[in-house]
Amino acid sequence: MSEVLSGTLFGVGLGPGDPELMTLKAVRVLSAAPVVAHFRKSGRAGHARTIASAHIRETATEAAFDYPVTTEIDFRDEGYISAIREFYTACAETIAGHLAEGRDVALLCEGDPFFYGSFLHMYDRIKAAHPVTVIPGITGMSGCWTAARAPITYGDDILTVLPGTLDRAVLAKHLEGADAAVIMKVGHNLQKIKEALKDAGRFNDAIYVERGTMPGERIVPLADLGECAVPYFSIVLLPGGRGRRIA
Amino acid sequence: MSEVLSGTLFGVGLGPGDPELMTLKAVRVLSAAPVVAHFRKSGRAGHARTIASAHIRETATEAAFDYPVTTEIDFRDEGYISAIREFYTACAETIAGHLAEGRDVALLCEGDPFFYGSFLHMYDRIKAAHPVTVIPGITGMSGCWTAARAPITYGDDILTVLPGTLDRAVLAKHLEGADAAVIMKVGHNLQKIKEALKDAGRFNDAIYVERGTMPGERIVPLADLGECAVPYFSIVLLPGGRGRRIA
Repeated sequence: MSEVLSGTLFGVGLGPGDPELMTLKAVRVLSAAPVVAHFRKSGRAGHARTIASAHIRETATEAAFDYPVTTEIDFRDEGYISAIREFYTACAETIAGHLAEGRDVALLCEGDPFFYGSFLHMYDRIKAAHPVTVIPGITGMSGCWTAARAPITYGDDILTVLPGTLDRAVLAKHLEGADAAVIMKVGHNLQKIKEALKDAGRFNDAIYVERGTMPGERIVPLADLGECAVPYFSIVLLPGGRGRRIA
Repeated sequence: MSEVLSGTLFGVGLGPGDPELMTLKAVRVLSAAPVVAHFRKSGRAGHARTIASAHIRETATEAAFDYPVTTEIDFRDEGYISAIREFYTACAETIAGHLAEGRDVALLCEGDPFFYGSFLHMYDRIKAAHPVTVIPGITGMSGCWTAARAPITYGDDILTVLPGTLDRAVLAKHLEGADAAVIMKVGHNLQKIKEALKDAGRFNDAIYVERGTMPGERIVPLADLGECAVPYFSIVLLPGGRGRRIA
């Protein structure tokens, strides 16, 4: 019996949303991949799949992994952790099945694969048994500060990146002295984020960005946003450069 | 007399160094640009120019801006500020000259144009008078954590990005409680950065990355680096995910 050489798992960073912000390397790997996998919100086409669509082979086998729970649940909640752990293990088994049979798998990743996101849970489960290659991508936050025409850091600015899932007091503590900050994962956390920015005296510096670099892009001062429901993947920016520019 | 329509300044993010990590958009804009400009250390080919070389038209007019001072001087030094201010103003005048005559200018930017770097000083000087389009790029730090196979942030990790030019006490204060951190601009600041990491009790978690994603790439635990001179654009990583992974 001949032994099959393992396929490679490619974590393919797709960038912030505009398909033209994919890298040459991502396009090359996708165009050759016999298996393409992606995570998505149940019932949706999947954001990553939409970004990559022009480069996926017609003959590729596709695997769509539907999240069993909403991303809005607190990361530290025990029920969430248990459900998502089981889900990630099943996804990794599907991927490993293809790899064991010698097929490369391209796993589509919004933004950069090593900067938050579900790819990390596949990476941790698969790297010991199979080759893994990661292709970095432009982060969602880079796409947002570019779309907002808001340079984020000058000179010796410190940048702090905060998940909006954190407690109000933790957010406020980090925002208070920040030169520049980015708050990710806004969604249901919007009201809390606004309060934390007010606590820190930074509310009027903040910019809200939704669907940065994509159709339907929306960029407004956070103070003008009003009361409304916003998507999980929207971002709040506190640009740096205060008193630091070489004018 | 007919009025000439202004050209557009394109800030073209080139990514972390591997030319294949350029975006489709950067390649499209570069391939069409009649004028290509870049900053470089005096006497060098220029790192940005090297990354982009395959995509610059043979007929393009090129402008190389040689830094008049080393990047190693303290950003807050008055002599440095005065010399560099004069330099940036002269560069902006050269660019504006092309724009005023209707020629588009592609200014090559390592990494992401709005994340530190010299492009910001051109942007601030030119945006009021001429159209400016910014193309985001993969940051150097994304390239480094990918090359090091070191996922930087999981779940609700906070990421702190620190210029190595800051004082030891400031660095140590931010490193102490950090979930994940990146220290940029290492160079002559290496010894101070090591001390700050020791002050913060984080020295043994740190990874040193030089020329990430490029030929000559070097990745070692910082504790194994020893005493040596290192380049300004090297990076130190403190990866996140401690106790936060969904195993």
